[in-house]
Amino acid sequence: MKALNAMLYCSVFAISLLLAGCTRPPEVVDGATVSRPEFSLTTSEAYDLEAIPAYADNHAAVYEYIDENLDAHLAAIQRWLRQPSISAQNIGIADMAGMLRDDLANLGFAEAELVPTDGHPGVWGYYDAGAPKTLVVYLMYDVQPVNPDDWDSPPFEANLVDHELGRVLMARGATNQKGPQRAFLNALDSIIAVEGNLPVNIMVAAEGEEELGSPHYYQIIQRYKDRLMNADAALFPFNSQRPDGAISVILGVKGILYVEMSSTGGGWGGPANAEIHGSYKAIVDSPVWRLIKALDSLTSPDGNTVLVPGYYDGIIPPTEEESLLINAGIEQRNDVQQQELLGVSRWIDDKLGNDAVIELLYQPTLNIDGIWAGYTGEGVKTILPHTAAAKVDSRLPPGLDPDEALRKIRAFLDDNGFDDIEIKKLGGYPASQTSVSEAEVQAALSVFRKYASSVVVQPRIAGSAPFYQFTEVLGLPLVPAGLGFGTGAHAPNEIMLIEPKAGVGVAGLADIEKAYVDFVYALVE
Amino acid sequence: MKALNAMLYCSVFAISLLLAGCTRPPEVVDGATVSRPEFSLTTSEAYDLEAIPAYADNHAAVYEYIDENLDAHLAAIQRWLRQPSISAQNIGIADMAGMLRDDLANLGFAEAELVPTDGHPGVWGYYDAGAPKTLVVYLMYDVQPVNPDDWDSPPFEANLVDHELGRVLMARGATNQKGPQRAFLNALDSIIAVEGNLPVNIMVAAEGEEELGSPHYYQIIQRYKDRLMNADAALFPFNSQRPDGAISVILGVKGILYVEMSSTGGGWGGPANAEIHGSYKAIVDSPVWRLIKALDSLTSPDGNTVLVPGYYDGIIPPTEEESLLINAGIEQRNDVQQQELLGVSRWIDDKLGNDAVIELLYQPTLNIDGIWAGYTGEGVKTILPHTAAAKVDSRLPPGLDPDEALRKIRAFLDDNGFDDIEIKKLGGYPASQTSVSEAEVQAALSVFRKYASSVVVQPRIAGSAPFYQFTEVLGLPLVPAGLGFGTGAHAPNEIMLIEPKAGVGVAGLADIEKAYVDFVYALVE
Repeated sequence: MKALNAMLYCSVFAISLLLAGCTRPPEVVDGATVSRPEFSLTTSEAYDLEAIPAYADNHAAVYEYIDENLDAHLAAIQRWLRQPSISAQNIGIADMAGMLRDDLANLGFAEAELVPTDGHPGVWGYYDAGAPKTLVVYLMYDVQPVNPDDWDSPPFEANLVDHELGRVLMARGATNQKGPQRAFLNALDSIIAVEGNLPVNIMVAAEGEEELGSPHYYQIIQRYKDRLMNADAALFPFNSQRPDGAISVILGVKGILYVEMSSTGGGWGGPANAEIHGSYKAIVDSPVWRLIKALDSLTSPDGNTVLVPGYYDGIIPPTEEESLLINAGIEQRNDVQQQELLGVSRWIDDKLGNDAVIELLYQPTLNIDGIWAGYTGEGVKTILPHTAAAKVDSRLPPGLDPDEALRKIRAFLDDNGFDDIEIKKLGGYPASQTSVSEAEVQAALSVFRKYASSVVVQPRIAGSAPFYQFTEVLGLPLVPAGLGFGTGAHAPNEIMLIEPKAGVGVAGLADIEKAYVDFVYALVE
Repeated sequence: MKALNAMLYCSVFAISLLLAGCTRPPEVVDGATVSRPEFSLTTSEAYDLEAIPAYADNHAAVYEYIDENLDAHLAAIQRWLRQPSISAQNIGIADMAGMLRDDLANLGFAEAELVPTDGHPGVWGYYDAGAPKTLVVYLMYDVQPVNPDDWDSPPFEANLVDHELGRVLMARGATNQKGPQRAFLNALDSIIAVEGNLPVNIMVAAEGEEELGSPHYYQIIQRYKDRLMNADAALFPFNSQRPDGAISVILGVKGILYVEMSSTGGGWGGPANAEIHGSYKAIVDSPVWRLIKALDSLTSPDGNTVLVPGYYDGIIPPTEEESLLINAGIEQRNDVQQQELLGVSRWIDDKLGNDAVIELLYQPTLNIDGIWAGYTGEGVKTILPHTAAAKVDSRLPPGLDPDEALRKIRAFLDDNGFDDIEIKKLGGYPASQTSVSEAEVQAALSVFRKYASSVVVQPRIAGSAPFYQFTEVLGLPLVPAGLGFGTGAHAPNEIMLIEPKAGVGVAGLADIEKAYVDFVYALVE
């Protein structure tokens, strides 16, 4: 979905919650009691991250190469950032796709080619190291639109700018995702320059439509599926550090179903063609009321429990591993701070701490992203609108498939006489989950333990991303991770920290690249 | 309200319904059964319009003067139409107010002055005929905005244009209301020119903010209240004919309450300051759901019965007079034609004929004019909006006061835990009703019987207009009436018929003015 990165960026805070508890009253629907399931952790033990040894190997020659070539590496990132690639406006897309392809070829990728899709082209790359293991790297070369007037430094000049954390690159795509992606390629370049080869084969499966919701990424995956399935792991190079230097590793995302629900006048009643004078309400049904009644039927009076029968049936409760990880993150949580950041006075049902985390990560949602009908301007206009619509999304934990969720919602509306309500699916995909026990995850954690002040592993975030393409379709573990800090994705003044001030615990560009070097080696060690 | 004329224009069709019947199931709220009252007529007899003799006096010299000066009279209307007076954009307002004042002075009004208000100025005029009777004339000198590109003839050129009914004036304000208003003044001018005096004293109470909802008209009324109360009747010069020539006389309008209801995050839950990421729905309450639940609580599952306790208590059922008038209109009704015009397949509860008319005229409504929250653009955006709002109006038959209606809605929401829902009143006024037995109405009907192919008297329309200022505040009967046909109020290509083709039964400008002459005399005869 479009919000992929926004979701990931938000995730850093999502686990910052404190412990408490409460109960919730059940709702009665059609004579049956409906309530959200009460999930609980299987253990009070915590995952012992200290038991993972910090990565100990030293690739001194490669590190030295990085230090010596840091200006050129920065320039490579700037070259990418100075090439606009706004997918929504089709600005610079072909040039950026070509630049990525050429960069892969120059790095020594035996295969480096554009991949036609029904939308913007993908880029495929294969670096044959003759190694026993293969890493798939997910890249996105597109960025969000900009309003240059809102920027302190022009969004496609990629200037180095002073920031409270140090020197930062300011540009559209600085952190989402050109910065960390090109840093990863810089790391590969350094290994090849020093060692003559990589320790793993690399498959790059890049798209230029991530900011559009990845509508054709499946075409890229399908084209190389037989080869991708034989890989060992997938990586999404990602600035995962917080300003305090702590690193947050995300092992899972919720899926999502996104629909537009609407009511329009017709056989059931209501004006079919155009708004009519509001005074007719006395004898004419209202599509706005109709939509409100249909929406209302879907949730409990507080709007927080989904009343669609069976909606909660298949959800997989916290596993032992997830329970351990949630307990391990408890010290990082601060409900009050998190609520202040969001401008929220309380969590639903006044839950706190692990209880709130469990709700956040294991409950499916039914959220209204937008609703509209009729006159919404200033003052007074008296009309009976002929149509009303709402954008509705449901976040789906593992065990609730988007198509199944849609079928259940449709059936529930039909069973309650709302068969005239239209539901248009705008998008959807299932959840994704990778186990902390995967060798790739252990490798990443050992590297992060070497560089970061503290490491938190989130078994899942409440947001969504189409990682199922790797974990479910290809059966690969996936980690979106890396050192580094950035902010401002989808906003003005997007930055990536390049050169931290003394005392700042976040990695600069050199350490970001060194950690990627270590990660690539750790995968095979 | 802004929609005054749209409401009046719609009214011509509002009574066009055919006879049938059905029943409706009651709703249960808080253990109590709530249902709309079932009103019925007190009689199956019909008001006998034929018993009113057509106006018989002949003011031949005045008619002749009108015919001889018709070009000048048309030019006077065009002069008004060529002066833009768009209240919403403050275009030409001062010039038009001055033009109206000067015209009154030139006609021989002893008093002709601008009336300062907190908005655009009003205009007061008094013609002292030394007569025993006084007629108050309501005028509005403002018009709706225009988009000139949408017009076949420029909206402020006031050209004569060919139309299927004959020669028409095309201009903003042609029928709403400069055309009929200036035609009325032309009639007064003709009487004065021929007879040297009017048979009645005239008070003009004009405003320049009708299209804004008449927010300061009460200031004009209050200023002259002591004098206005001593008048005998009030007239709103109005093109009341349908294309087939039938004239529709309106004796009452519903009142209206117009509010904006909104929910914003705060102490009850939900984000208070700005939208947050949609994935937080799992632990954060939604103001959109909150508004939907609050709105839902106000009406029955079909959205058609108001569940607010006591909402229907004071409504005055059909009187004997109203029942007679409704029965008299039965032959004019055609539900199927009316439904086709509106694009509606059925009336609520499948009512037809008089049953539908009774619903239309005696039931208060709760209508959602507009609703909005969050993202309403193309595609997908995953947010949890921090605020949601709806524009809601309630049409109020006599017996339900807007402030009382608002108090009841507020109390009901509070009693059901929705005290966090904000209600902002945007406007409101009570219903207005004039009896068919008033001498002014009888005078108008006798004149219309002289000129029109058929006359229908609507005891009330479902729409609203602030006529209570005359009927309730001043205690005067009010008739919005006159011969003539126009259409396109609030739309491009607004017209008023000036010179009907042979065979067309609608009055042209000459007959419109002659009928106003007759009406002024009939008032005193």
